[in-house]
Amino acid sequence: MTANDPREIGVGMLGYAFMGKAHSNAFHKIGYMTWPPPLRPSLVSIAGRNEEAVSEAARRYGFERWTSDWRELVADPGIGLFDNLGPNDLHAEPTIAAAEAGKHVVCEKPLGRDADESYEIWRRVAAAGVKHMCAFNYRFVPAVRLAREMIESGELGQLRHFRGRYLQDWGDTTEEIWRFEAASAGSGALGDLAAHVVDLARYLVGEIDTVGGLLTTFIPGREVDDAVEATVEFEGGAVGTLEATRLALGRRNAFQWEINGTKGSLAFDMERLNELQVFRADGDRARGFKTVLVSEMNHPFWEHWWPPGHIIGWGDTFVHELHHFLAAIAGDSEVAPHGATFEDGYRAAEVCDAIVRSSTSGKREAVGYRTAS
Amino acid sequence: MTANDPREIGVGMLGYAFMGKAHSNAFHKIGYMTWPPPLRPSLVSIAGRNEEAVSEAARRYGFERWTSDWRELVADPGIGLFDNLGPNDLHAEPTIAAAEAGKHVVCEKPLGRDADESYEIWRRVAAAGVKHMCAFNYRFVPAVRLAREMIESGELGQLRHFRGRYLQDWGDTTEEIWRFEAASAGSGALGDLAAHVVDLARYLVGEIDTVGGLLTTFIPGREVDDAVEATVEFEGGAVGTLEATRLALGRRNAFQWEINGTKGSLAFDMERLNELQVFRADGDRARGFKTVLVSEMNHPFWEHWWPPGHIIGWGDTFVHELHHFLAAIAGDSEVAPHGATFEDGYRAAEVCDAIVRSSTSGKREAVGYRTAS
Amino acid sequence: MTANDPREIGVGMLGYAFMGKAHSNAFHKIGYMTWPPPLRPSLVSIAGRNEEAVSEAARRYGFERWTSDWRELVADPGIGLFDNLGPNDLHAEPTIAAAEAGKHVVCEKPLGRDADESYEIWRRVAAAGVKHMCAFNYRFVPAVRLAREMIESGELGQLRHFRGRYLQDWGDTTEEIWRFEAASAGSGALGDLAAHVVDLARYLVGEIDTVGGLLTTFIPGREVDDAVEATVEFEGGAVGTLEATRLALGRRNAFQWEINGTKGSLAFDMERLNELQVFRADGDRARGFKTVLVSEMNHPFWEHWWPPGHIIGWGDTFVHELHHFLAAIAGDSEVAPHGATFEDGYRAAEVCDAIVRSSTSGKREAVGYRTAS
Amino acid sequence: MTANDPREIGVGMLGYAFMGKAHSNAFHKIGYMTWPPPLRPSLVSIAGRNEEAVSEAARRYGFERWTSDWRELVADPGIGLFDNLGPNDLHAEPTIAAAEAGKHVVCEKPLGRDADESYEIWRRVAAAGVKHMCAFNYRFVPAVRLAREMIESGELGQLRHFRGRYLQDWGDTTEEIWRFEAASAGSGALGDLAAHVVDLARYLVGEIDTVGGLLTTFIPGREVDDAVEATVEFEGGAVGTLEATRLALGRRNAFQWEINGTKGSLAFDMERLNELQVFRADGDRARGFKTVLVSEMNHPFWEHWWPPGHIIGWGDTFVHELHHFLAAIAGDSEVAPHGATFEDGYRAAEVCDAIVRSSTSGKREAVGYRTAS
Repeated sequence: MTANDPREIGVGMLGYAFMGKAHSNAFHKIGYMTWPPPLRPSLVSIAGRNEEAVSEAARRYGFERWTSDWRELVADPGIGLFDNLGPNDLHAEPTIAAAEAGKHVVCEKPLGRDADESYEIWRRVAAAGVKHMCAFNYRFVPAVRLAREMIESGELGQLRHFRGRYLQDWGDTTEEIWRFEAASAGSGALGDLAAHVVDLARYLVGEIDTVGGLLTTFIPGREVDDAVEATVEFEGGAVGTLEATRLALGRRNAFQWEINGTKGSLAFDMERLNELQVFRADGDRARGFKTVLVSEMNHPFWEHWWPPGHIIGWGDTFVHELHHFLAAIAGDSEVAPHGATFEDGYRAAEVCDAIVRSSTSGKREAVGYRTAS
Repeated sequence: MTANDPREIGVGMLGYAFMGKAHSNAFHKIGYMTWPPPLRPSLVSIAGRNEEAVSEAARRYGFERWTSDWRELVADPGIGLFDNLGPNDLHAEPTIAAAEAGKHVVCEKPLGRDADESYEIWRRVAAAGVKHMCAFNYRFVPAVRLAREMIESGELGQLRHFRGRYLQDWGDTTEEIWRFEAASAGSGALGDLAAHVVDLARYLVGEIDTVGGLLTTFIPGREVDDAVEATVEFEGGAVGTLEATRLALGRRNAFQWEINGTKGSLAFDMERLNELQVFRADGDRARGFKTVLVSEMNHPFWEHWWPPGHIIGWGDTFVHELHHFLAAIAGDSEVAPHGATFEDGYRAAEVCDAIVRSSTSGKREAVGYRTAS
Repeated sequence: MTANDPREIGVGMLGYAFMGKAHSNAFHKIGYMTWPPPLRPSLVSIAGRNEEAVSEAARRYGFERWTSDWRELVADPGIGLFDNLGPNDLHAEPTIAAAEAGKHVVCEKPLGRDADESYEIWRRVAAAGVKHMCAFNYRFVPAVRLAREMIESGELGQLRHFRGRYLQDWGDTTEEIWRFEAASAGSGALGDLAAHVVDLARYLVGEIDTVGGLLTTFIPGREVDDAVEATVEFEGGAVGTLEATRLALGRRNAFQWEINGTKGSLAFDMERLNELQVFRADGDRARGFKTVLVSEMNHPFWEHWWPPGHIIGWGDTFVHELHHFLAAIAGDSEVAPHGATFEDGYRAAEVCDAIVRSSTSGKREAVGYRTAS
Repeated sequence: MTANDPREIGVGMLGYAFMGKAHSNAFHKIGYMTWPPPLRPSLVSIAGRNEEAVSEAARRYGFERWTSDWRELVADPGIGLFDNLGPNDLHAEPTIAAAEAGKHVVCEKPLGRDADESYEIWRRVAAAGVKHMCAFNYRFVPAVRLAREMIESGELGQLRHFRGRYLQDWGDTTEEIWRFEAASAGSGALGDLAAHVVDLARYLVGEIDTVGGLLTTFIPGREVDDAVEATVEFEGGAVGTLEATRLALGRRNAFQWEINGTKGSLAFDMERLNELQVFRADGDRARGFKTVLVSEMNHPFWEHWWPPGHIIGWGDTFVHELHHFLAAIAGDSEVAPHGATFEDGYRAAEVCDAIVRSSTSGKREAVGYRTAS
């Protein structure tokens, strides 16, 4: 089958570091790995504070131009999609401005530094009428999407347990980075890692009702939390634990979760992101968890890739995520439910805030959600 | 080397079911697998309510006699060790009576049905001056002992995280058993499974200070909890999560824990009880968790077994445990710190009670410990 | 249900070291773990060359008497089962003598030091009309029996591939033990380890037709092979590889095999002997190998043990094996096909001999089997 | 640091299917993931027999032009690198022609359909004086390169064992593809999969001296082999087994190998290509294989990627491989020893031919290597 040349969309990017690389790579690959792409992304301009670094990033990733002032992106008529990868304190103002200038917006997680800021971003952007997505890329891991499909189809029955933990181990450092500053980051492991756990918990299990939380800072003088522990209750009746830490030696990127239902269970580890562990209570004498290598032609996203068994990488989750957003812009589909909208970004922030409140009050806290209007 | 014939000690056992099999097997094996044994156990008498069943158990396991009245064991001068494997509501009275009759006592976990009962057992038995051990057999898994030794020697540095969960999946049943009755069992997953997690947390990480807990009963009409979730703070500064459930489909006996310190990490799963996962932050370029098959001649308990790599089973943990208790009776060593004394049994009950209080109050609860006198 | 006291059978054992411990332990446990046992083994006498050692073994394992002359066992009318655990050069004469004295005989593997000797043992013992079993205990691992049942029932379809390897790593030693002496052992890794691979290959896949073999001795001055490599063709059309070595660092007891058929696959590792990996080509979208913890009540041998998930050890395979032989003596069942008869022991030796011939000739060699008469 | 714009090199590609996608993607990513790239690849022209398909591939992957006649690529002065991804029967003529036209050449494996053809390609291309690489991309898996570095540095001591197998399971099909035709493919699993095993065996362990081989075709009417089994002897004294099959159900892309030396062992599985299993005989009481997630900044190729623990995919091995070739063209390094030269491609073919000869003759066959002149 021959495809017509897809329409283009101009991309403006704020941020050029780790996430700039990940998103730029994804925009390039969408152009040929997904075929035909819903829209062909054209890298128009990239913004960042360090002129030397941002100019080199522009050359490296193939942006037509660069700027040290993100307002230029907002004003740029050639840009249809604004992709905000800046530090957390640079999420609100540029994202809202871009949306109000009519650009579709992607914003890295956490959406804001707390629920209030996140709510404000969501409310203003929703009012602007553009498409919006909070870049919780782990929804776009094939194994996670497969899990979602299995749960939705009832294969697990009614859900009873969720246990999710995001373990990293780089936190024992004296390096000065924005992620350790309260003003820039808002929080530590909470917004950086636990927010991912909360988002997947909501995506896979459902809305969280109450939390009992505990924040800990181990490193003397650090402004933000190093670790988060919580117990959670879900609206649907499931209960569980939730944890995030930057101090679990040996765990580099171990976002691990397990879900138990009345008919089966699923388990996952981001360090083996191509695999899903599947248990079904089907009476089979050969009873056990199956290690499913999620790389079959009938598996999510796999039509874009390789023959079965030829695994993809962490960076490829952004291909799926931004492809999904482009399809939404092109009108082929909605951002929700598979993409996290800014409402999802806001709701994750409400859960995180409730964990903070609970840690302070020593009490189990209910999570309350506001509506957009 | 030739060993002299070890002295005998008469064993009286209360209970003949699952645990009766486990302990009887251990007493037999101690006689020849550990050589020379500290004392040679002689199976004198077994007690149980069902005459037909207990008489057959006596024949099967080689007890000299049987009785349907546990008081006969207490009165039996041929019995030096009273091993209480009855349901939880039969722990206090017979154990105290046996101790006060001068017998050394082993009691299955949980020691009592709550902290008060456990305290009473401990206090009375300690006052009697006999040796006592609460049968937290998982302290006697070689991998667990190795973990303890590594932690004690400082190989993990200062401990920061504990995450422990005991997952089983047989709870979705309408079978009527004493474990589901509040009066007999005291609690559900809490006393049955979470107590094990609490005990190993205390054994490996240290005393627990505060808990935020949540008990859940999923099965309609069930008197006891099906699942427990908690966050915990340790005296030494570590934090963590703790979970136990009888409803995690696919997990048959998955007592899994992980500990992270400032120098390394350990992880374990009871379904692979011969293995310990070990991570050390030693700067090695080949960085990762080692899967240690705990079966070397310089590993705990291994002098009793086979050549390296020839794994042992769950039942063999009782060989180690009861061997340890016999050694303590023989005066070769103390029950503590490697065996759980009744004080340990009581302290685990205090943590469990605090989880219950927290679940009810919705507040983080401090754990308070009484002294024996 | 009440069982009648089972009949006794007197056991005479030749050998008291590693295997003496394993078999003695098994005879003890059969008495109460399997209930009622087909026959109750009574440990009558144990023979060995070192008087001090054998007398202590007698005390340790509870034999009524001991001797330094195995002929006394053969002459002992109280002995109904002769269990030969001596070095390979002590297999033929005592085993044949015991059988010709009317005793049922178990002999450790390899049956003889080569096919000729093995054939002679089989022929003479078969002629004596007693029950005989070559102690290939790995047939009695629950996961192996489950594999056999799945294959027999056609769940794997027609078999295409077998790849089996037995890897150990203790061979880099200057210790002087009989296993390194050609006269005592016959061969090295071949008879010790590869024989196990051959036996399970025959048990699970079927008769071996041709082999292309290669023996290697790495340690200077060693009389026997350290490693065996071979390609194999089976009568039924499957092909595969077979390997055994004492020099695979890090592999302590890694008897690993995998079988692929037209409908599914199985994989196994003795270091995780409670697990069987099962793949079925059943069109399930969740496609992958299942890690089956072989410990369910409907799994082989599990009626003797613990609740699901409470794993057994390597030593427990001997409980199953000797229980099976006692049942055969009691007339409840036949030794074959689940127990390896001396014919099986002989046939394994023919395959091993063919590997030796092939290694010498540099040619693929056909395996020829003689009949008993 | 700011990089100057790297020089460009024009790429001409023959083939547009699976491998066309893999190589095109790599050429794109080299431009920004490796920074600065040694040369910036410019996709000039792509050739293929089906005009509609090749024209769409050109649009999809961003080639300036396309052609159905590969000779146009050879004649194109804008092309400096000729990348041959055609079926095996299209390797020799175009590759030689391109080289003789002065273009650097990459050719997919196997180099030719047998050793004679491979030799001819190597000899002619070497004589042309251009750079040449046979695309054994698995040398460019980070874990494989790390293995090579560890072996070279002596960390494993002297090598004793290699066991390598490449297991896939798509072969049970009636689909008609060139890989099943003898004229196009030369061989089946042998050239397609076993060639990879041979190449890594040579790369990691050293030259192969002798083989005992066995080819099997299971599917009736199939012209090529479905499975290969072999025993191998290496020049350096190691021995091992080698296997490849397209009929191992459940194994999608399981290129698994293990190497044992006198000081340590390594193991690998392509389905978990980010992991290397490492064992060292260093006397550590915590003895076992380490699961190394090969994603540290001091690991091979990782300077191009993400923070530790964020894994890469199978497709990314081509980024490393073609980056390496571009560096060689730029004069920064040599193709050998890390890239497979055409001599390596030829030598792998000699080993494969020896396996064929051995399978036919039933004899162990020596591998003989010709020199280029």
